[in-house]
Amino acid sequence: MNLLLLSNSRNPDSGYLEHARPWFSDFLSGAKTLAFVPYAAVRFGYDQYEKAVSDALGDLVEVRSVHRGSPADIVSECDAVAVGGGNTFHLLHELYRFGLIEGIRAAVAAGMPYCGWSAGSNIASPTIRTTNDMPIIEPPSFDALGLVPFQINPHYLDAHPDRHMGETREERLLEFAKVNPSVPVIGLREGSAILRDANGARLLGSRSARIFRGSEPPAELDAGSGLDVLFNQ
Amino acid sequence: MNLLLLSNSRNPDSGYLEHARPWFSDFLSGAKTLAFVPYAAVRFGYDQYEKAVSDALGDLVEVRSVHRGSPADIVSECDAVAVGGGNTFHLLHELYRFGLIEGIRAAVAAGMPYCGWSAGSNIASPTIRTTNDMPIIEPPSFDALGLVPFQINPHYLDAHPDRHMGETREERLLEFAKVNPSVPVIGLREGSAILRDANGARLLGSRSARIFRGSEPPAELDAGSGLDVLFNQ
Repeated sequence: MNLLLLSNSRNPDSGYLEHARPWFSDFLSGAKTLAFVPYAAVRFGYDQYEKAVSDALGDLVEVRSVHRGSPADIVSECDAVAVGGGNTFHLLHELYRFGLIEGIRAAVAAGMPYCGWSAGSNIASPTIRTTNDMPIIEPPSFDALGLVPFQINPHYLDAHPDRHMGETREERLLEFAKVNPSVPVIGLREGSAILRDANGARLLGSRSARIFRGSEPPAELDAGSGLDVLFNQ
Repeated sequence: MNLLLLSNSRNPDSGYLEHARPWFSDFLSGAKTLAFVPYAAVRFGYDQYEKAVSDALGDLVEVRSVHRGSPADIVSECDAVAVGGGNTFHLLHELYRFGLIEGIRAAVAAGMPYCGWSAGSNIASPTIRTTNDMPIIEPPSFDALGLVPFQINPHYLDAHPDRHMGETREERLLEFAKVNPSVPVIGLREGSAILRDANGARLLGSRSARIFRGSEPPAELDAGSGLDVLFNQ
């Protein structure tokens, strides 16, 4: 299975998907066409989303948004698939609505490269139970693509707004781990990504990731670490 | 209908529920017993949660957690009901599991005072679609108690962690408003509350609240404002 799962689409001081260009360039080197899933967009249109991705990756691959025709047909006609960030609940709701869950799962199981960022990485998990997003719309189920056997928490952050009394991210993920003790979580900090290809799986970027698993204390996984152990549990 | 809905349980420099003691004292003046719903707790036990609430309010009212016996019986035997904060998805999941949704709705419609904080305020809304919490467990539905005809967003905050690329709270609520244009949202800042009693409804605390409604620009509602217009829409 070939996966490139980014925490975020943009670093503070760079353009859209710019920090990940070398990764996309390698990952999509065998692909001519990329089916793009824009359903996480809520406050901007799918045309605009497609253009942003095409502006960022169009010199590497031809970007075709699935809203341009039959979504399932477009996925099956392309060489790779990408799912963009936005609202995870909206994304999953629309994936169910357009019947794309099984099609994407099957294509990726058969070797089609899958890339995602933010919500698009979260839905590669078994469920969306570690999304940071607001549940603005109710999907038929929290079950997601399940391309990886652990949960991804994108935009993992250590900071907490001063004098704010809501839960920290760590507290939220410890609650997940308490209720779901058998499912590990990887908190991906901004600028990080998971790559899985024929050479195995590893953590990309310059920052460590944070691992949560049942009642174990959270642990740091160094930048560049292999991730095969998470895939082969 | 008698409602006291707090954004949060604790201000940065005070004890549990301490900032709201004068409000509870007035609101519960006619009650001898308070049924407490602890189901939002995830990483600490219901006994411990009951003790914290009893320590804070026990001189005003006898606190009886619904986990001590038949939850529905305890609610019906008490003079008032309180729902504590924690994880909203866990809270709603357990309210469905123990069949408490209809019982609380009916009791409150018949005049029983309802108080809540954080998750306990969010579930007074028609749905939990404006919770800030992580969806660590999947409830049978996002439909909640519907004690108010608008959505409450507790812990509303303006700050955003430096260099973090996730959505701001305002962006999240604008997404909600885009997908649910007919449902107003009130963002309750820390230290604020909604009171509804025989004298009408108003915003308690020293801070303004932020109102989101469809495609209208977000608006500020001054501290102390009447809220009848939100209830009577």
